[in-house]
Amino acid sequence: MEFKAQIIAAFLNGEIEGDADATVTTVAKIEEATPGTLAFLANPKYNHYLYTTKATIVLVNKDLQLEQPVSCTLIRVADAYAAFASLLELYQNTKQQKVGISTQACIEQSAKLGEDAYVGPFAYIGENVTIGKNAKIYPHVYIGDNTVIGDNATIYSGVKIYHECVLGNNVTIHASSVIGADGFGFAPSAANQYKKIPQIGNVVIEDYVEIGANACIDRATMGSTIIRKGVKLDNLIQVAHNVEVGENTVMAAQSGIAGSTKVGANCMFGGQVGIAGHITIANGVKLAAQTGIGNSLKVEDQILMGAPGIDIRNFQKSTIVFKNLPDLAKQVSELKKEIAALKANK
Amino acid sequence: MEFKAQIIAAFLNGEIEGDADATVTTVAKIEEATPGTLAFLANPKYNHYLYTTKATIVLVNKDLQLEQPVSCTLIRVADAYAAFASLLELYQNTKQQKVGISTQACIEQSAKLGEDAYVGPFAYIGENVTIGKNAKIYPHVYIGDNTVIGDNATIYSGVKIYHECVLGNNVTIHASSVIGADGFGFAPSAANQYKKIPQIGNVVIEDYVEIGANACIDRATMGSTIIRKGVKLDNLIQVAHNVEVGENTVMAAQSGIAGSTKVGANCMFGGQVGIAGHITIANGVKLAAQTGIGNSLKVEDQILMGAPGIDIRNFQKSTIVFKNLPDLAKQVSELKKEIAALKANK
Amino acid sequence: MEFKAQIIAAFLNGEIEGDADATVTTVAKIEEATPGTLAFLANPKYNHYLYTTKATIVLVNKDLQLEQPVSCTLIRVADAYAAFASLLELYQNTKQQKVGISTQACIEQSAKLGEDAYVGPFAYIGENVTIGKNAKIYPHVYIGDNTVIGDNATIYSGVKIYHECVLGNNVTIHASSVIGADGFGFAPSAANQYKKIPQIGNVVIEDYVEIGANACIDRATMGSTIIRKGVKLDNLIQVAHNVEVGENTVMAAQSGIAGSTKVGANCMFGGQVGIAGHITIANGVKLAAQTGIGNSLKVEDQILMGAPGIDIRNFQKSTIVFKNLPDLAKQVSELKKEIAALKANK
Repeated sequence: MEFKAQIIAAFLNGEIEGDADATVTTVAKIEEATPGTLAFLANPKYNHYLYTTKATIVLVNKDLQLEQPVSCTLIRVADAYAAFASLLELYQNTKQQKVGISTQACIEQSAKLGEDAYVGPFAYIGENVTIGKNAKIYPHVYIGDNTVIGDNATIYSGVKIYHECVLGNNVTIHASSVIGADGFGFAPSAANQYKKIPQIGNVVIEDYVEIGANACIDRATMGSTIIRKGVKLDNLIQVAHNVEVGENTVMAAQSGIAGSTKVGANCMFGGQVGIAGHITIANGVKLAAQTGIGNSLKVEDQILMGAPGIDIRNFQKSTIVFKNLPDLAKQVSELKKEIAALKANK
Repeated sequence: MEFKAQIIAAFLNGEIEGDADATVTTVAKIEEATPGTLAFLANPKYNHYLYTTKATIVLVNKDLQLEQPVSCTLIRVADAYAAFASLLELYQNTKQQKVGISTQACIEQSAKLGEDAYVGPFAYIGENVTIGKNAKIYPHVYIGDNTVIGDNATIYSGVKIYHECVLGNNVTIHASSVIGADGFGFAPSAANQYKKIPQIGNVVIEDYVEIGANACIDRATMGSTIIRKGVKLDNLIQVAHNVEVGENTVMAAQSGIAGSTKVGANCMFGGQVGIAGHITIANGVKLAAQTGIGNSLKVEDQILMGAPGIDIRNFQKSTIVFKNLPDLAKQVSELKKEIAALKANK
Repeated sequence: MEFKAQIIAAFLNGEIEGDADATVTTVAKIEEATPGTLAFLANPKYNHYLYTTKATIVLVNKDLQLEQPVSCTLIRVADAYAAFASLLELYQNTKQQKVGISTQACIEQSAKLGEDAYVGPFAYIGENVTIGKNAKIYPHVYIGDNTVIGDNATIYSGVKIYHECVLGNNVTIHASSVIGADGFGFAPSAANQYKKIPQIGNVVIEDYVEIGANACIDRATMGSTIIRKGVKLDNLIQVAHNVEVGENTVMAAQSGIAGSTKVGANCMFGGQVGIAGHITIANGVKLAAQTGIGNSLKVEDQILMGAPGIDIRNFQKSTIVFKNLPDLAKQVSELKKEIAALKANK
């Protein structure tokens, strides 16, 4: 498909500077753009690319001051990044959507499918399952008995959702993630052996949650493991039984939260973060990648790093000394000698 | 279903204190219980909840001393936690079990299925596979040629078990775990390239092992990767080729064991632990979450923490100093000046 | 199958020392070998096993000097390890290969399958997909619309490859890995919420790449996430959107690379390594297990360890001091007292 600068500017409520008939067929980053592409410039760090880019059209912020002439057509908008994101969304929505119920799916008779739902080949939908309107259930998805999936859900290929779980509206789960597997609960029994504690709770995932690929959200022993509204979890994340993750909290890949921990709202965790079980993390806490937290964090909005995690600036200062620890030890050892000499000389 | 205190007490061999006709329909944690639920009290830390809980029935230890009157019915048993776990198990077993061989499964003719096995839709069972009695093979499971699955196995949806592997009785594997993929074996060849070393061994999983979701147990290069009896592995765990994990060892989520390492019996690893290849870990070793081990551990029952892991108390003491390293460095620098001044003043 | 020493020596262009009619049926490690097996000896550390092994035939390096008589038959070759690997390969190739297109697969009409491709039961192949010659698509694989799979690819059971991705020739992907899921891209919107940035790029995987089980390679926001020729990635690895991994780089299990980072060629990462986003790692960099890298590494071939990663020898020296930090702090505190005493005494 082709789009003219004029059409794009009208859609974005922007102002054209240059050729209103300039035409693009796809999008690209400003530094990699080729003729026929549309790019954007939001970060001032990249301003210099504007004068060399081969993009045909570039979205820029309203207040951008040009330092030299440009060869591309500009469209000035209030927020170039947000405008670009909405174009991407438009572009994505023009793609053909999957529809229909495959005859190669296996849907138990007691299951209920919402209007305009898509169910792909080899999907399995268990007894008494409810699937919302416009939900998309890709091939090889497994949905256990009595589970509820809300409207507009997108459940990608190979996702496994155990029985009795409840997913809200507009939830997206990427391929091969597992929702509702048994929590890791065993009681020591005779002679160093372990006895399984049945996990009879479930997982509740609220509206607008997105979960990456190959992630795991375990079901509660009793009650629910809860992922609150707007949470975004990346790939390969572990959320153990009875955990609660607060609204709009974001976690990067390979992070793990141990059992019964309560994470606050609006937290941001880097990759490979680990949080111990049975603790509480305050709202707005930020943890750098690979941070380990063993105790509750009660102060909101603090930023920690390290294992165990401490204030990020302290951690950075301490790591600088850490690099030179052998030298510090040597200095101390020399000081001891000097003091011994001073004492002897008195 | 409804259960009376009398029936529950009889089942648990306990003594009723209160209303023998008190009736419950489900279970809950003592602090979250509502009328009609049964809870338990095992940890003295939670004793105070006993006087405010809304649970109808609470299981308590025989020797618990009441400090004030309670409104719920008590059932006194030898071990309240174990009694509760056995009730959960009973509750779980009353649920309908999956049975039968789906006509939508693909089972090669040479495969043998044990009595009362369940094979769900879209499961694939390869040539010469043997499936034990009462085994449950959920939808989308893949079992490669010549693999043996023991009696009472539960293989959840999407588990992939490659060819030639051997699983014992009463093994449980959660969704999307991969058993028997190739070990990561490559030999350097010309010009920085790598040549694959064929992995012709297998994986052996002994009785009563439970493995979480999205975990990986690689097949051996030659011989077997072995998971001994009673081992419990959490989600997203990596066990590399030719590893052996000893009886009743327990590992929390996201831990990884590199190739050819031998982990002893009765070990306990926290989450995100990493163990190097070609080493030996003694029996009963405990590793805190995120610990890294690069060398063999020969002393049994030691508790380590840190990366690299050291005695947990030493690690904790060292991390306290680590937080103040810049201050320590400053002190040393000041001492140097003072000593220089002392020397000059002599 | 049985193989005589004579045949094996001829195949490997080696020299027999002992019984040319000695016969083996399988292979084993030298320390675990039983009669009827063939083993190899490449690492001098294992030389002593040569005199006690029960292997019938042992491959050794041409220049090995015997220290005492051996009871097995030796075959001397230029490189015992390489020779053994080529025997393993031969052994593997004698196994029956999967062939044919299953009638229980779902292949969209517009998809094109190469000659001699295998497509297993319950595989799903989307619109306009191209599958190369001799490619093997195992059961439960999902291949999204417009994706291209090269010749001789091996895509194991349960792998999910999203739409528009491009895989080269001789690529192997192990079970349940996910290629092309959405990158983790969200823009903050009103009131602590996040708005999804559509991920319209793809994943490009070049020739001779091997990827382990349960790994994730996310699609680019725009453009491509690129895995260059000959790269080997282990299980449970995370490669985020717009990352590029250079030729023949090798990463062990559970490592993760954050978005837009460019990793050089011929790098080697241990397990559980974490690399921040938007940085560059020079060619030939080696990172020990659990290393964390937050900034670009511009020096080639350096070896780092720790979180944050520093030169491996410095890290090892610093960790020795770390273990004794409380003692170092105590020494400094004592020195302070001694200096105070010296000053007072003047």
